[in-house]
Amino acid sequence: MDYNKQSLSLHEKLQGKIETALKTDINNADDLSTVYSPGVAEPCRVIAKDTHAAKKYTLKGNTIAVISDGSAVLWLGNIGPEASLPVMEGKCALFKQFGWVNAFPIVLNTQDTEEIITTIKQIAPGFGGINLEDISAPRCFEIEERLKNELDIPVFHDDQHGTAIVCLAWLINALKITGKKKEDIRVVVNGVGAAWVAITNLLLTYGVQHIVVVDSAGTIHKGRENLNPIKEMLTNVTNTACILDPNGAWCIKGWLADAIIWADVFLGVSAPWVLTPEMVQSMSPDPIIFAMANPDPEIMPEDAYKAGAKIVATGRSDYPNQINNVLVFPWIFKGALESWVNAITDNMKILAAQGLASAVENLSPEKIIPWPFDAWVADIVAKAVKGKKK
Amino acid sequence: MDYNKQSLSLHEKLQGKIETALKTDINNADDLSTVYSPGVAEPCRVIAKDTHAAKKYTLKGNTIAVISDGSAVLWLGNIGPEASLPVMEGKCALFKQFGWVNAFPIVLNTQDTEEIITTIKQIAPGFGGINLEDISAPRCFEIEERLKNELDIPVFHDDQHGTAIVCLAWLINALKITGKKKEDIRVVVNGVGAAWVAITNLLLTYGVQHIVVVDSAGTIHKGRENLNPIKEMLTNVTNTACILDPNGAWCIKGWLADAIIWADVFLGVSAPWVLTPEMVQSMSPDPIIFAMANPDPEIMPEDAYKAGAKIVATGRSDYPNQINNVLVFPWIFKGALESWVNAITDNMKILAAQGLASAVENLSPEKIIPWPFDAWVADIVAKAVKGKKK
Repeated sequence: MDYNKQSLSLHEKLQGKIETALKTDINNADDLSTVYSPGVAEPCRVIAKDTHAAKKYTLKGNTIAVISDGSAVLWLGNIGPEASLPVMEGKCALFKQFGWVNAFPIVLNTQDTEEIITTIKQIAPGFGGINLEDISAPRCFEIEERLKNELDIPVFHDDQHGTAIVCLAWLINALKITGKKKEDIRVVVNGVGAAWVAITNLLLTYGVQHIVVVDSAGTIHKGRENLNPIKEMLTNVTNTACILDPNGAWCIKGWLADAIIWADVFLGVSAPWVLTPEMVQSMSPDPIIFAMANPDPEIMPEDAYKAGAKIVATGRSDYPNQINNVLVFPWIFKGALESWVNAITDNMKILAAQGLASAVENLSPEKIIPWPFDAWVADIVAKAVKGKKK
Repeated sequence: MDYNKQSLSLHEKLQGKIETALKTDINNADDLSTVYSPGVAEPCRVIAKDTHAAKKYTLKGNTIAVISDGSAVLWLGNIGPEASLPVMEGKCALFKQFGWVNAFPIVLNTQDTEEIITTIKQIAPGFGGINLEDISAPRCFEIEERLKNELDIPVFHDDQHGTAIVCLAWLINALKITGKKKEDIRVVVNGVGAAWVAITNLLLTYGVQHIVVVDSAGTIHKGRENLNPIKEMLTNVTNTACILDPNGAWCIKGWLADAIIWADVFLGVSAPWVLTPEMVQSMSPDPIIFAMANPDPEIMPEDAYKAGAKIVATGRSDYPNQINNVLVFPWIFKGALESWVNAITDNMKILAAQGLASAVENLSPEKIIPWPFDAWVADIVAKAVKGKKK
């Protein structure tokens, strides 16, 4: 099916994909006086006394903003705010469809880190949560961290943490199938963009102990020069043999081809075709391949299987095991809004991944994560987020 | 009916009054691929080439923002962003109900003029129009002017211009009933807040020639000291006898009681009870009283009629001739969005007022403006705005 053509014609016909709708009828003067003046003054007075009451009496309690500057949209790159609107509107549609969460798209006429942070803080009072979307790295890291610290509502950069949660859910089930243990496995994260830092951190928090991260300049290790602060931090928790002895045999230097030898898991959020069949052949038995580059994966599933892969997942909808954030983000915010948490913690993310992993019926190498249309999965993930109330 | 109690319970039950809704089904993988990835890339690409296409392919074409800083909400005053949400959401509900316009509330965590302007400019790319709401004077004047100049979408401060349009519509019909002429009438505008400057300007543009404006320090006239720039400007176009001779008999100085003598029309957007029956008795025959203070008018209708008023209108829903902006704002934006105009001009405002005035069937002193639920009125007003395309 030509999705491009069909999508363009749908967008034109509907003039977008979401709209606003009334929750109550306004058919006469009594309705007007209740919904609007003079009756509306009463909830205003109540909220003026305690701003937290806004969650109880307004859309703040069940509505989030999906915010982008259009700097890193899909595989299209920096296309700016207007051109990113179809994606943000689509994301809002998915929030409603899968999580029953009201989401509204906000696209920003700036790509300056400080201006983005300031603008989001200015418009935050009307929202119950902020989903950051398609903001390019490394700005996305600072923007998310600052907003998390400076706002009292959940801030979640889906490209980072949604992806990390799905990866972890997938990994949990892949380990079940292969009988490997999280403490023992050797994981290679091959990354550019926004997701790989979050994936690495979440795996470490979950208890994976042996991770080597590879970027465009090779493996990240203690002693490598000119690392940015985030990568410098990673040298303390990944490729840890280098900390003891940067010149020892266990410190992994070089390129992906060097790091992948004897690895159990390849996690790619990088570029098409960078994982060769030879590299897969050099991995430990029953290798687990997670090839998430878009629009084409780091290796095509058929090539990976031919080279000996036990389990392969990609971002593509035309192969089994599609890595799809829609398994996570609607339900993460559903849980967050229903219990009014003020942050999505690492613990919630791990619980969400475990919930998602447990939701697979008839686990097999070709079916390691649930199908987004399994509506019953929603509550499993949402419950993980329902931590302590604010 | 106790609207306060009923409104509070409605707000709690519904957790707000508006929500987002899908315009299209997402029931299977094909739908996902059309609404979202990969198909969504196509409208993105088209808009990336020409940002104006966002109006054609996204919600930008049919959605506005209702924006407030919560500084001048109803008669509650400066209650801040969260507490203003019920009003903004209510306004958005009215936009949808009466104008079929999608409107989303944005409340701002700042009351600084420059920060408000900057924030609105940053979030503007996703909206087809901006309705400013309940922002206190005089900041609202500068904010609106700057945004009109710096954005390419319509910016409309309803408290100013919606009120002005309804006033003009009302005046047009009041003149029909009394047989008075716009060139001849003497109008007193008694004002505080946001609306009176817009009312005065629109009446002057329409062709009313004799207006005297009264503020809390008395009549505004050439030679009065310590006027702000807006009032200084008004000394050139109102109370014009003072320009020729500030000491002459025709230059009206003093207070409302002085200005109202022999006036044909009183337009109050000021404070309860300031217009006394004695003042009404001092006006020309068949006086026209427009008492819009909230929650109580400048004079109660029964007192005004007893003192000789021919026509009385107030902001109250429990008396005839309610001045209600809902007669204007949904349809102004309906017209603006449908024809993609980039500004609401004075000419459009006058056409809208004339359309609204002409929509009254069986004109009488107790029925000088239409009823908001007369759905057929909508297109009359909307058509007035459908000027030249962008």
